[in-house]
Amino acid sequence: MKHFISADCITNMTYALNEAKEIKKNRFAYSTLGRNRTLLMVFFNSSLRTRLSTQKAAMNLGMNVMILDINNGAWKLETEKGVIMDSDKAEHILEAIPVMSSYCDIIAVRSFAGLTDRSKDYNEEILDMFIRYSGKPVLNMESATLHPLQSFADLITIEEYRKKRHPKIVLTWAPHPRPLPQAVANSFAQWTGRYDAELVITHPEGYELDGKYTANATIEYDREKAFEGADFVYAKNWSAYGGTDNPENYGKILSEDRTWTVDSRIMSLTDNAYFMHCLPVRRNMIVTDEVIDSPRSIVIQEAANREISAQTVLKMMLEEL
Amino acid sequence: MKHFISADCITNMTYALNEAKEIKKNRFAYSTLGRNRTLLMVFFNSSLRTRLSTQKAAMNLGMNVMILDINNGAWKLETEKGVIMDSDKAEHILEAIPVMSSYCDIIAVRSFAGLTDRSKDYNEEILDMFIRYSGKPVLNMESATLHPLQSFADLITIEEYRKKRHPKIVLTWAPHPRPLPQAVANSFAQWTGRYDAELVITHPEGYELDGKYTANATIEYDREKAFEGADFVYAKNWSAYGGTDNPENYGKILSEDRTWTVDSRIMSLTDNAYFMHCLPVRRNMIVTDEVIDSPRSIVIQEAANREISAQTVLKMMLEEL
Amino acid sequence: MKHFISADCITNMTYALNEAKEIKKNRFAYSTLGRNRTLLMVFFNSSLRTRLSTQKAAMNLGMNVMILDINNGAWKLETEKGVIMDSDKAEHILEAIPVMSSYCDIIAVRSFAGLTDRSKDYNEEILDMFIRYSGKPVLNMESATLHPLQSFADLITIEEYRKKRHPKIVLTWAPHPRPLPQAVANSFAQWTGRYDAELVITHPEGYELDGKYTANATIEYDREKAFEGADFVYAKNWSAYGGTDNPENYGKILSEDRTWTVDSRIMSLTDNAYFMHCLPVRRNMIVTDEVIDSPRSIVIQEAANREISAQTVLKMMLEEL
Repeated sequence: MKHFISADCITNMTYALNEAKEIKKNRFAYSTLGRNRTLLMVFFNSSLRTRLSTQKAAMNLGMNVMILDINNGAWKLETEKGVIMDSDKAEHILEAIPVMSSYCDIIAVRSFAGLTDRSKDYNEEILDMFIRYSGKPVLNMESATLHPLQSFADLITIEEYRKKRHPKIVLTWAPHPRPLPQAVANSFAQWTGRYDAELVITHPEGYELDGKYTANATIEYDREKAFEGADFVYAKNWSAYGGTDNPENYGKILSEDRTWTVDSRIMSLTDNAYFMHCLPVRRNMIVTDEVIDSPRSIVIQEAANREISAQTVLKMMLEEL
Repeated sequence: MKHFISADCITNMTYALNEAKEIKKNRFAYSTLGRNRTLLMVFFNSSLRTRLSTQKAAMNLGMNVMILDINNGAWKLETEKGVIMDSDKAEHILEAIPVMSSYCDIIAVRSFAGLTDRSKDYNEEILDMFIRYSGKPVLNMESATLHPLQSFADLITIEEYRKKRHPKIVLTWAPHPRPLPQAVANSFAQWTGRYDAELVITHPEGYELDGKYTANATIEYDREKAFEGADFVYAKNWSAYGGTDNPENYGKILSEDRTWTVDSRIMSLTDNAYFMHCLPVRRNMIVTDEVIDSPRSIVIQEAANREISAQTVLKMMLEEL
Repeated sequence: MKHFISADCITNMTYALNEAKEIKKNRFAYSTLGRNRTLLMVFFNSSLRTRLSTQKAAMNLGMNVMILDINNGAWKLETEKGVIMDSDKAEHILEAIPVMSSYCDIIAVRSFAGLTDRSKDYNEEILDMFIRYSGKPVLNMESATLHPLQSFADLITIEEYRKKRHPKIVLTWAPHPRPLPQAVANSFAQWTGRYDAELVITHPEGYELDGKYTANATIEYDREKAFEGADFVYAKNWSAYGGTDNPENYGKILSEDRTWTVDSRIMSLTDNAYFMHCLPVRRNMIVTDEVIDSPRSIVIQEAANREISAQTVLKMMLEEL
């Protein structure tokens, strides 16, 4: 594995999950693997879990870590080609990428969707420029449409908590005051679709995700039916993808329906399911206090596995250097 | 010692001061004690000395350090319970704390007083949530009402410079253009009260500190009398605590009296006292250039001891892990 | 070498260039030299290359690194002496400098020109205070009038790419939408003036640099003549220095003439010259896409040499500790 961009970068999922298990047992077993290797983490957007867990993972492997917040400490980058740069953007990403990557061995990037131009977002223009111009392995810390470090951590957590060979996993849309990217939902569907599980996705009509990622899932508009007998409930908000019929809906909030908030009543339809969310979570919008504070909530354990997810991925990347 | 929150966390002050002395002689004597241990420093407020000295201290002990500026790089945290999170606050501290602490071995926190709700500040609600929800040792980098790393550094400095067995130490209020917390003054009174010294506190009427911290001090409203024969003068501004009679004064500026600025004339009443301040200091508000630039000013030495203070505390915390 | 402020701090340029060559061959050969040594990087202004390359260089040498962004995470510093500090500036640089330096072994500073008061800028008041009050070796990460880490990297790059014993190097002014300091141009002229090369500087009238730095250069107002037969073209914008006749022009934009943009036509007059720029560069203002994207552009290699430049300098500074 050179780059880590999506589930597709992991050819052998069983191997990766086993690696994660081993690393969790002893996270300092490979503390010299990253000696004299530097991870540069570049943030175009804010971060809490990803920043800390990825930094920690790299340090567990003995790497040096540098962090660059593009909007704090550096300056705005121009991303359009061919422009006369007479605006407030001081540097072109065409220079910034090869320069940044010249100072590191692995370059990690967070760059969210703009949510206005779907083809720009779904072409992953920023991430793609990093892959093309950095000359270094690229680690996706959440791009316009994907968040694979999160989804790998989700799978590690499901693997730890599942009691059935073939659990039922429900990804449910939930309301949120601001329009959010589809990245977490896309990646969750993509990764879980490769896992030995039944994946059901439920959301109000109009919130259909890109079919590319939901090929192995059942879309169930009847929310109660979706929750029935579930072993894991994964809540997440996303804005509309739009689909082929309604591309103009891309990035829009189509529903603010608070009946979609995950509460005890809907959870009672499940088979005593675990509650999951990638965090940060809007309490009493996405999920009630009662559910997230219950013993069936494993959101903290899930977040803690972000360190294991990042360390497993970085270990694989270091082994290819 | 698990947490380091206040002077009360140090059971044996003499032992702690001796440890500090040893560490200052060779700050790299324990450079493997913190191996594979991570300190996470979380800042809700700005910092210069605390940030650098604590980071340096941790590195001296061989620890890995991660820094999170909540307001730069992350996002606003909700601290109220039970709310519907539809505002600009993206994450609840109830999730943020256990998540952050899952990536580290010791969690250090800076969170200043709001200065509007005294009971909220004096109940140390934020710090308390870190203690209750982090599951990790908590290091106080200045909370709403206490700044113990500063006061320990102050004592280390007094111990180095004192020429008498039982020196007279004066804590004097001084004017400042903005309302400041009582944290430094509270902690100074608390720590010095346990030290073999005479502690006199002087301030305009209405600036009485919480009696809990000043039990071992003499309150002297006559400023000249307070300074007489002093060996150490510790200047600091604080806003009103309010007390039982005037709780409505909490966090207010009651005096802007510039005659309280520490100048050469008032210093001449002392026994050639050393001048101390925690910094940052407003020159010619708190103290005149003449006094702070004089050879009796030990503010820089005091600040340099912040590294020793933090390292001594971190060493004790690491030994308990 | 104690401090690293300008070309003058390097007594033997040949030795320094050879050191750089050796370090580039194996940048981990001295990975224990900086053990238990701490570099503090203090930024009053934004940075991308300097931040990352200097941090990387220090880590290559085994140093610990701390970074302080004065305007993010700390607070505004007062730099005027004798003022009553009742404004928004919370700390005086007279305290901040010795305090910051007490936590490190080498202190690196970035502080740009204000471009309003020439004598203040050219007296290097901020940098000078660091030298006088820090008590530690000071590393210039771009000051008001100089950027020696850049110019040393430039020379390392020229040394790598030159095909003639005595190449012709052209420093050409180019247009920019904002007024910029003269630091890069000053340092480039100062360093190249000590190198075995012919240095020609070309710019519109009124853009004459401080004669102190251009003593070994030919000033050629005829741009085409300047470019003729050049081996290296170094483009850079700077605002007016003003000179003795027009001190009121200091920091001003005197020309926005886009015919000074470096394009293929003017490059065709050279001896197939390499194109250089310190970056960040405004594309299609300073240089056309065609030139900067051509195989003769070595701006990325030049930026990558910032790591080598910083590491060579830090190694020399560590050896003097």
